[in-house]
Amino acid sequence: MKDIPDASAFEARLRRIGAERYHDKHPFHHRLHSGQCTMDEVRAWVINRYYYQSRIPMKDAAFMSRVTDPKLRRAWRSRIEDHDGAEGRMGGIERWLKLAEGVGLDPEYVASEQGILPATKFAVDAYVRYVRDMPLLQAVASSLTELFAPKIHEQRIAGLLEHYGFANPDTIAYFRHRLTEAPKDVAFGLQWVIDHADTAEKQDEAAAALTFKTDVLWAQLDALWSAYVEPGRIPPGGWNTHEGLL
Amino acid sequence: MKDIPDASAFEARLRRIGAERYHDKHPFHHRLHSGQCTMDEVRAWVINRYYYQSRIPMKDAAFMSRVTDPKLRRAWRSRIEDHDGAEGRMGGIERWLKLAEGVGLDPEYVASEQGILPATKFAVDAYVRYVRDMPLLQAVASSLTELFAPKIHEQRIAGLLEHYGFANPDTIAYFRHRLTEAPKDVAFGLQWVIDHADTAEKQDEAAAALTFKTDVLWAQLDALWSAYVEPGRIPPGGWNTHEGLL
Repeated sequence: MKDIPDASAFEARLRRIGAERYHDKHPFHHRLHSGQCTMDEVRAWVINRYYYQSRIPMKDAAFMSRVTDPKLRRAWRSRIEDHDGAEGRMGGIERWLKLAEGVGLDPEYVASEQGILPATKFAVDAYVRYVRDMPLLQAVASSLTELFAPKIHEQRIAGLLEHYGFANPDTIAYFRHRLTEAPKDVAFGLQWVIDHADTAEKQDEAAAALTFKTDVLWAQLDALWSAYVEPGRIPPGGWNTHEGLL
Repeated sequence: MKDIPDASAFEARLRRIGAERYHDKHPFHHRLHSGQCTMDEVRAWVINRYYYQSRIPMKDAAFMSRVTDPKLRRAWRSRIEDHDGAEGRMGGIERWLKLAEGVGLDPEYVASEQGILPATKFAVDAYVRYVRDMPLLQAVASSLTELFAPKIHEQRIAGLLEHYGFANPDTIAYFRHRLTEAPKDVAFGLQWVIDHADTAEKQDEAAAALTFKTDVLWAQLDALWSAYVEPGRIPPGGWNTHEGLL
């Protein structure tokens, strides 16, 4: 058997993928967090990112549908609960719709999934399919972008509050909740990947899965920029900046 | 538009499918509930039925992975919780393993899924695939065998307690819990199917889905009978009545 890089070297490799490719590096996020986005750009982001949010619990259910170990399913289940909510407890999707309302969008329009860029759908659907079809190791590894999420959420909370009139505790509640939800999930996921990537080949596969996921996130922002950042070229079917306003 | 049979006629049609085809009519269940099964036959049933139990939460996750409506996902989620359990709350799969222990089987052997009849796997896997691949209406309708489950569970509880030394509140806890879980689930599922089967064609499709599901259940008992009811012809790979004993 080939020498396997140890757990800490492997974890460092995974973290390097984030340092190099996570979408906190995307110019759209710099623009958003530094207050340079127009309200139309913010709205376009909220509409398109809704599609990603809406598919996350479906992705997690697709994962659970392939897991034969009840303990692993049980550990994964809270992800769905965090997004879908429960009796008397708001979930992430509903919080995202509060943000939509806060930026002047009709939440029903946003939830209808009209106006979402085809490229957003292609990227997000590719992620759901990936998790449904790939070996469990890659499926779990693709969730590890959550390692890098708290930092971007902190930047976002600070940036939105500083620069945009719509930002207040209600409208940005989604991001605050993710500050505690994501670390809990990723601690489990990271340990699982480290435990199961027990050959050099599997470590490569896990790294490829995380790289794939960073591509999924990045592609959504490229599409957003292409369509809406001035001058912008909105493709057929994309939100036209006049629809769905409150 | 063609005349659509009204909700009560449609519900009666669904209930007729149960009256004609549900596996309470299968001779294996008569044998089991009337105390005529040998312990080997009981054990073979417990081993094979474990596979069905183990796939139910995967089936429900597969369903949720295709549902875009957070409310519908939320309503469905408790099915997974009922089977997988939660922190401090035993689930159906664990309860089934208590039954396994009660009939003298090593629960680890049963959970390992060794010795399960290939025909059991074919039938159960067909059900999971069906729910993953078919339109949501059929996926929900296929769950409606739960309409008929409380009756068979009551018969089973009474029959096991009367005829078998292994039966006690701990070993039969699975069935007692299903007496309350299944009606809650099926009340929701039945209403959903009635609401969504809004054409004669869809009513036919829903009825076909329920019929399919009765086939899935029946085929498992046919396979069990063929392999284990005396004289029985255990196929290659099937539990050999000496393995997995405590």
